[in-house]
Amino acid sequence: MQKIIEIYDTTLRDGSQAEDISFSVDDKLRITEKLDELGIHYIEGGWPGSNPKDAEYFKKVKKLPLKNSVITAFGSTHRPKIKVENDSNVKSLIASEAKIFTIFGKTWDFHVTEALKVSLEENLELIFNTITYLKKYAEKVFFDAEHFFDGYKDNSEYALKCLKTAEEAKADCIILCDTNGGTLPAEVAKIVKDVRQSINVPLGIHAHNDSDCAVANSIVAIINGAVQVQGTINGFGERCGNANLCSVIPNLQLKLGYRCIDDYKLKKLTEVSRFVYEIANLIPFKRQPFVGESAFAHKGGVHVSAVRKRPETYEHIRPELVGNRQRILVSDLAGKSNILKKAEEFNIPLEPNSLEVQAIVDAIKTLENEGYQFEGAEASLELLFRKTLGLKRKFFDLIGFRVIDEKRKGDEPTLSEATIMVKVGKNIEHTASTGNGPVNALDNALRKALERFYPELKRVRLKDYKVRVVNSGKGTASKVRVLIESGDDEDVWSTVGVSENIIEASWQAIVDGIEYKLCKEKIKKGEI
Amino acid sequence: MQKIIEIYDTTLRDGSQAEDISFSVDDKLRITEKLDELGIHYIEGGWPGSNPKDAEYFKKVKKLPLKNSVITAFGSTHRPKIKVENDSNVKSLIASEAKIFTIFGKTWDFHVTEALKVSLEENLELIFNTITYLKKYAEKVFFDAEHFFDGYKDNSEYALKCLKTAEEAKADCIILCDTNGGTLPAEVAKIVKDVRQSINVPLGIHAHNDSDCAVANSIVAIINGAVQVQGTINGFGERCGNANLCSVIPNLQLKLGYRCIDDYKLKKLTEVSRFVYEIANLIPFKRQPFVGESAFAHKGGVHVSAVRKRPETYEHIRPELVGNRQRILVSDLAGKSNILKKAEEFNIPLEPNSLEVQAIVDAIKTLENEGYQFEGAEASLELLFRKTLGLKRKFFDLIGFRVIDEKRKGDEPTLSEATIMVKVGKNIEHTASTGNGPVNALDNALRKALERFYPELKRVRLKDYKVRVVNSGKGTASKVRVLIESGDDEDVWSTVGVSENIIEASWQAIVDGIEYKLCKEKIKKGEI
Repeated sequence: MQKIIEIYDTTLRDGSQAEDISFSVDDKLRITEKLDELGIHYIEGGWPGSNPKDAEYFKKVKKLPLKNSVITAFGSTHRPKIKVENDSNVKSLIASEAKIFTIFGKTWDFHVTEALKVSLEENLELIFNTITYLKKYAEKVFFDAEHFFDGYKDNSEYALKCLKTAEEAKADCIILCDTNGGTLPAEVAKIVKDVRQSINVPLGIHAHNDSDCAVANSIVAIINGAVQVQGTINGFGERCGNANLCSVIPNLQLKLGYRCIDDYKLKKLTEVSRFVYEIANLIPFKRQPFVGESAFAHKGGVHVSAVRKRPETYEHIRPELVGNRQRILVSDLAGKSNILKKAEEFNIPLEPNSLEVQAIVDAIKTLENEGYQFEGAEASLELLFRKTLGLKRKFFDLIGFRVIDEKRKGDEPTLSEATIMVKVGKNIEHTASTGNGPVNALDNALRKALERFYPELKRVRLKDYKVRVVNSGKGTASKVRVLIESGDDEDVWSTVGVSENIIEASWQAIVDGIEYKLCKEKIKKGEI
Repeated sequence: MQKIIEIYDTTLRDGSQAEDISFSVDDKLRITEKLDELGIHYIEGGWPGSNPKDAEYFKKVKKLPLKNSVITAFGSTHRPKIKVENDSNVKSLIASEAKIFTIFGKTWDFHVTEALKVSLEENLELIFNTITYLKKYAEKVFFDAEHFFDGYKDNSEYALKCLKTAEEAKADCIILCDTNGGTLPAEVAKIVKDVRQSINVPLGIHAHNDSDCAVANSIVAIINGAVQVQGTINGFGERCGNANLCSVIPNLQLKLGYRCIDDYKLKKLTEVSRFVYEIANLIPFKRQPFVGESAFAHKGGVHVSAVRKRPETYEHIRPELVGNRQRILVSDLAGKSNILKKAEEFNIPLEPNSLEVQAIVDAIKTLENEGYQFEGAEASLELLFRKTLGLKRKFFDLIGFRVIDEKRKGDEPTLSEATIMVKVGKNIEHTASTGNGPVNALDNALRKALERFYPELKRVRLKDYKVRVVNSGKGTASKVRVLIESGDDEDVWSTVGVSENIIEASWQAIVDGIEYKLCKEKIKKGEI
């Protein structure tokens, strides 16, 4: 019998307090659906008393057909000197009609007197009254014991008294919060064990990552008797963030034998992580454990050759269990074994000890020195392989292009237009196009010029466009690296360009994207 | 008496095995100097046997006048079927002339037979011979027990036998490595304690972050008797990275009372972290504990008002101890108390309950919805405050600009040129400039046009330029957000622009950058 651990997600509330994150109501609803698919037990939707956006969310979320998750609403104990039934925050909680309310209250004496500015006795009343009152309107009330660990270290008697009060008020779960994130694992273990001896209500853990120990702290709390973990997808949250559920869940489930979500749902973890990054409009953190793009990426030569023989030599779990995958990286560190593995992937015949392998290694080194990076641009890499091996065809010649961006007054928009002349065989095509910006105009013009000769390009679209300053800070003439993702109905591919001129860098990546597509078509037809 | 813990940095070796990281020899030397300033005990410079770049590093590093750090060279036990003195890897170590060698060897039986493909007995000989031989050429030899934790769990007898062999060979420190990063803190604690009982040589810990527990694992190993921590700045490293020294050091020193580096050097930690990001050409991870830009950034309204009264309410340490600082963020979550704090910083008088405060909150909300972000663009924010309060002057009117990027053949570079016409008072200036790209050309042309009227602009330079696709994936017409850092001899300031057209977005940020400078000059002269 596996012990069940409840997962409580607060991405939509604590997560949205992170710098750079601002979810719209629609964003929050989309994330809710995704968390429900993942099988998360509780989704803290927001703090209806704090802003109108969250109140609107609670109205709309009721219409979502959720299968697994229960929505909870967050709020605080009622304000001093106001009756609980008249407190606007408490009223908004009830108005949210959530089935579960999570109430945070002070348990650190210093906070009670310094931040809340009430007596220690009064604070106990606030806790008792709020929980007792809200129990009438909800299936369950959870109590978040704010700053519990700091409070316990300062004045354990009072901190415990707060929990006892919540227990008497019939809270359904008491969550020990390391609000400032400063507590280390050994202390968490000891304190949870202590609390377990005097409190009978189920305990939860809510850890912040200020000491870089939020995941470890969550795990040791569970090992020592807590049964609920609060955290966020990707560890989003105020300051250094919350315990990262993308790490907590697989650790508990795959390594310690607890049961959090169904195994087949765990395979969605990587997808959910990236979805939430996408909605939050943040670049995924590559080195993120379990779900990061680099989490199972091998670069060092020794590692690559071993992991090719037996993955478990350098992989702590099978990446598929969390929906991730193994990647072999190409780089100047790695040497020939990576090149051979890549050639295999690309279906390009290559002799292990041939001069060609060395030629490819050299070409990559030279380009990497100039700022190119092929780890995120596999289509450009494949073209480089083909070019070095004399397998690349030329599909067109550029005679010239011109891009014009014009603004005719301070308050008018900037308009972009590109003209282009290309030669395909003996035909010359001269055309023009506008766009949302210079790169878009250029991309439109080039595809327009080539479509007459290569109709398969009609279905190709520019899907994503990224720019990175390569040698930022190293002088005014910074190089930029452009990464472009192109796609059609069947496939998606990425290409790269580097130059001091962003238009030149974009041009290189656009051309690679088109040549890659044309090359694949030729291969499909058996013409290469 | 504080117990001393030795810090062993492997940013230059294990760190460089991270995806996206490729250090030049010069980069490595600059990082070495910085780590020396920080007072790191050992700097693992590289693996001289693995690539010529590292061999060159060891030649050059000898000329650096280091004050605190000792350079170590990394390598493996000698190859089977070759005498230790004939092994090329061992020879390169000796040729490096480093004072300390760190040798990794297998201790997991599975790896011995599957990856190394030798008998268990032979592996012990490799360990013994390599250490004994190298001791003659170095002040110290450290033994990295690769995959020790996995090995110990699988076959503790053999794993310990490997350590015993290293001890007999007179290794000066034996480092227990969690190479795959899969071990959790409770196991690390137990295993280190076990090993401590049978090994007398000082122990070290080398943890990887695949379970998101590398920092916690390092700390529990120290608590249980290890005296050396290996890790990297910012946690760079293969896959999910190594234990992050920027978290390990302050945890050990500020919270557990160990002594790692001098307290006054600890104040350089944030600077060193950002320097290494800069050299590695990576965007710093904002939520990084202790040293990240968001590590002491407060956004939620409740937190902001409390932290203004007493910082320790939501800060686990004083940020200055690690050279970081408190930041109050402006965002739609935060409300009026942040706006008032900001106005104070900007030295703009603002009444707490005035209509103006609400007008600023509304303006920020509207712009944030459109994709603007002011957290990294304080100069634009200050201009927005001034504009909303009617305190902003107009310094010029744009009559129009045109930017042309031209490429005249497939193999020629793209050239960029901008023409611009502006009106200052009654004067019209019409001029043109080239640039390394369209934005650079436009920036040059605008400053050229205005310098006649505002000579103070001659000293202003564009220092950094960042582009972010704001709603990537949400359709083809992505918005971009441009962040520009401008500066002169005295000051640096950041501005933002958002548009579907990158030229328009850049224009907005450039104009803000110039207006900010002109505004500050007026204030300085008492004219505003």
